[in-house]
Amino acid sequence: MADLDQNTVTEAVIAQMADTPDPRLREVMASLVRHLHGFAREVKLTPAEWLAAIGFLTRVGQTCTPIRQEFILLSDTLGLSRLVNLMDDKANRVGEATETSLLGPFYREAAPQFGYGESIATRAKGPEMMLFGRVVNEAGEGVPHATVEIWQTDADGAYDLQVNNPEVMDMRGQFRTDAEGRYAIRTLIPLGYSIPMDGPVGAMVRAQNRHGFRPAHIHVLIGAEGYRELVTALYLGDDDHIDSDTVFGVSESLVVHPRAGLEGAPDPALPSVRYDFRIARKAAHDTSGRVGADPSKIAAE
Amino acid sequence: MADLDQNTVTEAVIAQMADTPDPRLREVMASLVRHLHGFAREVKLTPAEWLAAIGFLTRVGQTCTPIRQEFILLSDTLGLSRLVNLMDDKANRVGEATETSLLGPFYREAAPQFGYGESIATRAKGPEMMLFGRVVNEAGEGVPHATVEIWQTDADGAYDLQVNNPEVMDMRGQFRTDAEGRYAIRTLIPLGYSIPMDGPVGAMVRAQNRHGFRPAHIHVLIGAEGYRELVTALYLGDDDHIDSDTVFGVSESLVVHPRAGLEGAPDPALPSVRYDFRIARKAAHDTSGRVGADPSKIAAE
Repeated sequence: MADLDQNTVTEAVIAQMADTPDPRLREVMASLVRHLHGFAREVKLTPAEWLAAIGFLTRVGQTCTPIRQEFILLSDTLGLSRLVNLMDDKANRVGEATETSLLGPFYREAAPQFGYGESIATRAKGPEMMLFGRVVNEAGEGVPHATVEIWQTDADGAYDLQVNNPEVMDMRGQFRTDAEGRYAIRTLIPLGYSIPMDGPVGAMVRAQNRHGFRPAHIHVLIGAEGYRELVTALYLGDDDHIDSDTVFGVSESLVVHPRAGLEGAPDPALPSVRYDFRIARKAAHDTSGRVGADPSKIAAE
Repeated sequence: MADLDQNTVTEAVIAQMADTPDPRLREVMASLVRHLHGFAREVKLTPAEWLAAIGFLTRVGQTCTPIRQEFILLSDTLGLSRLVNLMDDKANRVGEATETSLLGPFYREAAPQFGYGESIATRAKGPEMMLFGRVVNEAGEGVPHATVEIWQTDADGAYDLQVNNPEVMDMRGQFRTDAEGRYAIRTLIPLGYSIPMDGPVGAMVRAQNRHGFRPAHIHVLIGAEGYRELVTALYLGDDDHIDSDTVFGVSESLVVHPRAGLEGAPDPALPSVRYDFRIARKAAHDTSGRVGADPSKIAAE
């Protein structure tokens, strides 16, 4: 038996994982072990720090519920979600397709359906705005009958799950484009908000002197038969935190400025944003997917 | 606003953490983000894999209870616990002090107290053995009134927590050395055992074609006023898994072979092990600590 030392232990672990039948799992775990050990060696992690990390991760897991996903929030605040998202976009984005953004921890399946121009604010009150435009393909042609799903905070910066009983949905909905690919959504002007600060991730963010805010945004998920699903979001350019998003989600091409009197707006009196979403056909070896999930689906796994 | 790409996102995250008041937290988190992102880039982590990892970590956290610590088990099976342990030993071990080993997830505080030569098997039955010797200092002098705490499986390879109601303690106990530093413990010959395989870490170990066993061992924790606490374990050399411990805990100097008729044994008829534990005085800047904890203390944090 060869005694292990702080360098040889890493290869001993990888050797014990060498019979993993799935080659991808073998590759991912070997890389994970090398980077995890490399981190611990670089900072000379002490037993007390290791124990604090164990306690922290345990609390993150135990804070997860069917309506709250603290591990996604941790991944978001460490920039990992955005990195996975950027790599996915680079690997699978075709041509001039709209840039993607994070799904985030507030997406929920089976949101209510609305007709052209209807409002998703069924309970919440506040200043209104309109989002309209087209869903187009790579040739700029309208995609008919595409699903446009949006979800966002109310005018106080809260999602439905944070103000209502979990069975009530508000400020989220599904629309269908018309025969020319057009959509129109009446909603409230969203407010930027703090990520949930009452859990272990909030404690971490506070200990790092970070403000914890995300700039105001509207989440968008677009699906159409034969096309790659588009998960993105539009960010309001006048938000104070537009350049310091706690979860690193903002891209220049997704920043919008609602204004009244916009040409072609369904209701010119309302502050409006025209945004055409460009979606790409699904490639043969597409590895794309949602960076996020409905928390209830993860907890139920 | 400069758009992030898969390389610049890493420094953007570290920049947002740059105001962390605690310099050590700032250093550790910056290194963690670099290594975590480096891992994700190296394997080109896909959204589906990321989501599987989120689900896995959530299940690990939710499997933790006051009597089970699945995150420590994960750290153990990835060799991280042993690495932290080895670095701690290198940084703080003095002279010829006994090598350390992992505390593991089955340690419990407030184990019952026994007198010299008494048996810790208050309920379990099986072939007996004796562990005896001295606790000595760096000069080889006996350390009087040191606490020698041991815990181990029964002859079926199970800890008390796995067979009894959690309030019942068995196969664990605290002893005190006498005026010459001597101790003697009657116990059962422990059996090697599988780590808990019914949780997410067990599923990972199975997916890696690992056997999941630890060689038979007796955990030891020694404390004495003014000395560095010693957390170690003795491993039975004839165990089939002595060279392939699932948690990488074995060191050559901790391998023992119980045999009858040993000179100086309190009961020469019993298979016995003589082991002298050498403990070191606490250093001024000692960062040592237990790589592990009573699970109920972590859950309660």
